[in-house]
Amino acid sequence: MTPRGIHHIGHAVVDLEVAVAAYERTLGAHLEHRQVVPEQGVEAVTVLVGDARIELLRPLGPDTPVGRFLEKRGPGMHHVAYLVDDVAAALRDAAASGAELIDETPRDGLFGLRCFIHPGSMDGVLVEFVSPARKERSDD
Amino acid sequence: MTPRGIHHIGHAVVDLEVAVAAYERTLGAHLEHRQVVPEQGVEAVTVLVGDARIELLRPLGPDTPVGRFLEKRGPGMHHVAYLVDDVAAALRDAAASGAELIDETPRDGLFGLRCFIHPGSMDGVLVEFVSPARKERSDD
Repeated sequence: MTPRGIHHIGHAVVDLEVAVAAYERTLGAHLEHRQVVPEQGVEAVTVLVGDARIELLRPLGPDTPVGRFLEKRGPGMHHVAYLVDDVAAALRDAAASGAELIDETPRDGLFGLRCFIHPGSMDGVLVEFVSPARKERSDD
Repeated sequence: MTPRGIHHIGHAVVDLEVAVAAYERTLGAHLEHRQVVPEQGVEAVTVLVGDARIELLRPLGPDTPVGRFLEKRGPGMHHVAYLVDDVAAALRDAAASGAELIDETPRDGLFGLRCFIHPGSMDGVLVEFVSPARKERSDD
């Protein structure tokens, strides 16, 4: 299943206020949503830059996936999330193509159903598939 | 000047063939363009995943920006390029907002005019502004 395009880019940060201010000041971004997601160990803020969505991720502690990412690599791009019509089908196709999965089945996320593909399968890029619960895009 | 959205994501890789095959196999990507850009020290391949564009970058040698990036961080996301109507105006606005510029004036790139903002101004993300020479998008 080919994704429709990019749903959002994940950006790991240390301080959400500093990061949101940088996006607002330099890229004219607008705040979309803010949510603590304990099961993922993050507080997430999404901002919109034109029609693009950036998901800013602050770890809730050092022993979380994003906390370990920051410790190892510092702040920066964390993942690319692609919009798909059906996360379960996308996951099956990715597995059939030989990709290493992080999630064996779709999980609930900030936007609806989602799953992750291991960065080892995509040359160092952590890939997410997202199938929003509600229709969010006006161009399809 | 607020960008319209994302023009492409740059992905630094060691082997273009391996990377293109991974995008084709796992994300149903289509090859768009391939070009050696000696002044940037890269060979670039762009692939389309749905309506998203990924720019795969292979350094022409270790002593190039992308070569040093790979040495330090390994393969992975390298930059986010935002589509703007006027690169010069976007550059002036970014400078006025206090962002640190890599390019003081727009330069010719793979897609038209472009410039880079220092990742230190955007919480670790290297940001590019792109103003394509030709209209590429059908949804605006």
